[in-house]
Formats: sequence, C-alpha cells, structure tokens
Amino acid sequence: MKDCVFCKIIKGEIPCHKVYEDDYVLSFLDITPRTEGHTLVIPKKHYENFFELPDKEIKNYFKGVKRTAELLKTKLNAKGMNILNNNGEIAGQFVFHLHFHLLPKYEKGKELWPKQEYKGSLEDTMKKLKS
Amino acid sequence: MKDCVFCKIIKGEIPCHKVYEDDYVLSFLDITPRTEGHTLVIPKKHYENFFELPDKEIKNYFKGVKRTAELLKTKLNAKGMNILNNNGEIAGQFVFHLHFHLLPKYEKGKELWPKQEYKGSLEDTMKKLKS
Repeated sequence: MKDCVFCKIIKGEIPCHKVYEDDYVLSFLDITPRTEGHTLVIPKKHYENFFELPDKEIKNYFKGVKRTAELLKTKLNAKGMNILNNNGEIAGQFVFHLHFHLLPKYEKGKELWPKQEYKGSLEDTMKKLKS
Repeated sequence: MKDCVFCKIIKGEIPCHKVYEDDYVLSFLDITPRTEGHTLVIPKKHYENFFELPDKEIKNYFKGVKRTAELLKTKLNAKGMNILNNNGEIAGQFVFHLHFHLLPKYEKGKELWPKQEYKGSLEDTMKKLKS
C-alpha cells in the first residue's frame, strides 16, 4: 500500500535489520527495541490489523511468527518471550499494517513493555542472530 | 494434562464464563480481568506454550483467536484490542497451558496491562456477549 512504511520495507525502499523472511512474512528488528532482539513480524500483503487478516492467510502468517520466535529464542538464548499485537490507535497501534511484536526476555522482574529502550546496538544483535 | 487448571476447565471440572468454543479452542473470561471482556483463548489439546504448538494446529488455534476477538469487538463495542501471549515464568506466564489474552480497549491513555483490575461483574459482561 502506497505510503505504508512497512510496505516500503517489504519492497526494499526502506532498509531493515532482517531477522527472518519467507514467501508470506518478513521479520525485522524494531528500531526502538524494548529488549534485545525485539522484532516485528509482518505479512507481505498489506492488512491493517489482525481483524483484517483473512482466514486463508492465518497459517502462513503465524508459521512465520513461530519461526521467528524460535530463531530469537535459540540465537539470543532468551529465557522467555512476550508476543504482542496492538489493534487500533487506542490500543497503541502506530503503523497500520498488521504486526506482532516479539519481545525476548532474559531477566526476572522486567516489565511486560519496558519503559526504557534497550540501548545495545542492533548490529551486535544481528551478529548473534547470524551466528 | 492432569493437574493443569485449564485442562480441568476444558473437561468441565472447573466452571468458566465461556465466550467462544469450537472443536479446537475454548475461550473464557479471565477471572481477574484488566478490561471489560478480558478473555483467554486456549487450545483444547495441552501445549505448554506457543513454542510447543505444532504447525498443523496453528490454523485451527488462531482461527479460534480471531473468532473470539471478533465477537468481543462486536458485542462489547470495543474501540481497539491488545492481543498478548506470555511464554515462560520470566515473561509472566503463570498457567503452563498455551493461552493468548484478548484485552478489548475502550478509552485512550489506558496502559497496555492496566494495574487495576476491572471491577464490573463478569455476569454483566456475559449478558452483553450473549445479546
């Protein structure tokens, strides 16, 4: 969709730190990560939110979510993971192209959505993911 | 699974406020809701978390998540929705049977996971859901 920043990432018009890709989904590091490896998983076709995802796309999309989650868990040695999707501005959705957040967790007592950004470099995270 | 509280709910050994059910999933109101209509969606087969859900179950499970989300949105006139899954104790998982939380949202400025419980009665919510 024209003017959708995630569609531009899919087309390669905006760069990203790619974590996983297949025929149906693209996963990339969030540029304002809340934990190391905080990743967004988006379908390659434009759907505004979870409610717009057709039944026939459910399997391919969530298989991509699962593959991405497995990769993050293994490569980053995460001890747990929060999986989060916001629908509607009122629920904290800012980009209106369906995306699930994957937030790997490493320590006890950390908030669901840490107020502070993770300050490590995305390049260092990418090195671990590619190892 | 023996001693799993969610398996007992599926078997009818523990009661619940049922929101949606099909051959593969059961959805019921969270007993400590964070917003009106806060619902859990569980697969009828016991899987500890998202990582354990086999690929062949993905479509049936997330179709159930979607049907439940649609029902909550329509019947409760929600303006948005957060969809959340916690994997591992460190990420806030307390019951080790896969579940996604659906949190309908009605107002701007509410936290992702409100600290205060929603104080309305579950019976009143059920009346709206059945209307």
